[in-house]
Amino acid sequence: MTDGLWITLEGGDGSGKTTQAALLEAWLSAQGRTVLRTREPGGSEVGALIRDIVLHHRGDIAPRAEALLYAADRAHHVATVVRPALERGDVVLQDRYLDSSVAYQGAGRVLDADEVRDLSLWGAEGALPDLTVLLDLDPAAARRRLDAADKPFDRLEAEREEFHGRVRAAYLSLADAEPDRFLVLDADDAPERIAEAVRARVEPLLHPR
Amino acid sequence: MTDGLWITLEGGDGSGKTTQAALLEAWLSAQGRTVLRTREPGGSEVGALIRDIVLHHRGDIAPRAEALLYAADRAHHVATVVRPALERGDVVLQDRYLDSSVAYQGAGRVLDADEVRDLSLWGAEGALPDLTVLLDLDPAAARRRLDAADKPFDRLEAEREEFHGRVRAAYLSLADAEPDRFLVLDADDAPERIAEAVRARVEPLLHPR
Repeated sequence: MTDGLWITLEGGDGSGKTTQAALLEAWLSAQGRTVLRTREPGGSEVGALIRDIVLHHRGDIAPRAEALLYAADRAHHVATVVRPALERGDVVLQDRYLDSSVAYQGAGRVLDADEVRDLSLWGAEGALPDLTVLLDLDPAAARRRLDAADKPFDRLEAEREEFHGRVRAAYLSLADAEPDRFLVLDADDAPERIAEAVRARVEPLLHPR
Repeated sequence: MTDGLWITLEGGDGSGKTTQAALLEAWLSAQGRTVLRTREPGGSEVGALIRDIVLHHRGDIAPRAEALLYAADRAHHVATVVRPALERGDVVLQDRYLDSSVAYQGAGRVLDADEVRDLSLWGAEGALPDLTVLLDLDPAAARRRLDAADKPFDRLEAEREEFHGRVRAAYLSLADAEPDRFLVLDADDAPERIAEAVRARVEPLLHPR
């Protein structure tokens, strides 16, 4: 892909992806770059219909069907939104990509994470971002945030915490496997400090030699 | 899969699949069997939503996204409709299965037919029907039917005829590769003669020794 730059943001809900995307977009725009903010699932017209099925359907969806729906959303999004923007030379700032599917499936332990990854890569014809920013929130920090909110902590919450611990571990192992693509930052840091670290990593990508 | 029997019907539009399914259902019911008539795409609640996207969305869908959507429909249909019915001991009579995806994709020449097959098989956890009835209509017979209808024959029609010739060739090569699963019948025969040939093949499957 030509002059465009493709950056994805990953991390659990509440890790600050939206805040960081907004800060990075403002900075990139000030540099004179055209920025496309997008997301998965639901970053295209067809994708919005698919998102509606996977997120809002009442009743269970078979695990393999769900993985195929996410991959279908991804295939259409990359082919019709991401690739054309990169070919125009835009910067694509994307909330979640295939790492989300792999980390959440890996944590759920229903399907094989490698198979889920292969499915998405087949759909997207192998396309991978130039940079993936992982906003990593350790469970202790997440717990402190909850405690500060003074909410009661029930068994469901505890199970959820355990699940999020597995998602986090899966994310970190993905980052370990591809250190050149991933930038891992502590989501518990001050937003402006995180943004600064992101900019430091993005800057050289804007002016490649 | 236990006492159930899974029969799929394949062939181009207008080859008589619906007529044959109705005749076979009536005969099976008379034998005291519980019959579930279903179809792909759209044989489940989630599948109806997916069918709506693949068949009625205005505007193109990226080819890989489309293949993934068909596979998602299939995965959910097999897991939530077909398998439970077979486990109850029902006969499942199904209009189109993965052979449709493979034949139409193969004829369209956009995606690799083997990849499309692998996708569907992954989604369906490898499930294949006990019997697939292919209603084969040769282009000359299809042409005679058109001529009899006395409709003008334009270039688009000619292209369509060429495409359907390729679909037919793809179906026949699938049947060649799995002769034990396929029963190939001439769709131009009288419906009652075709039904008789289907019953002759189904009967021993109802009373396996």
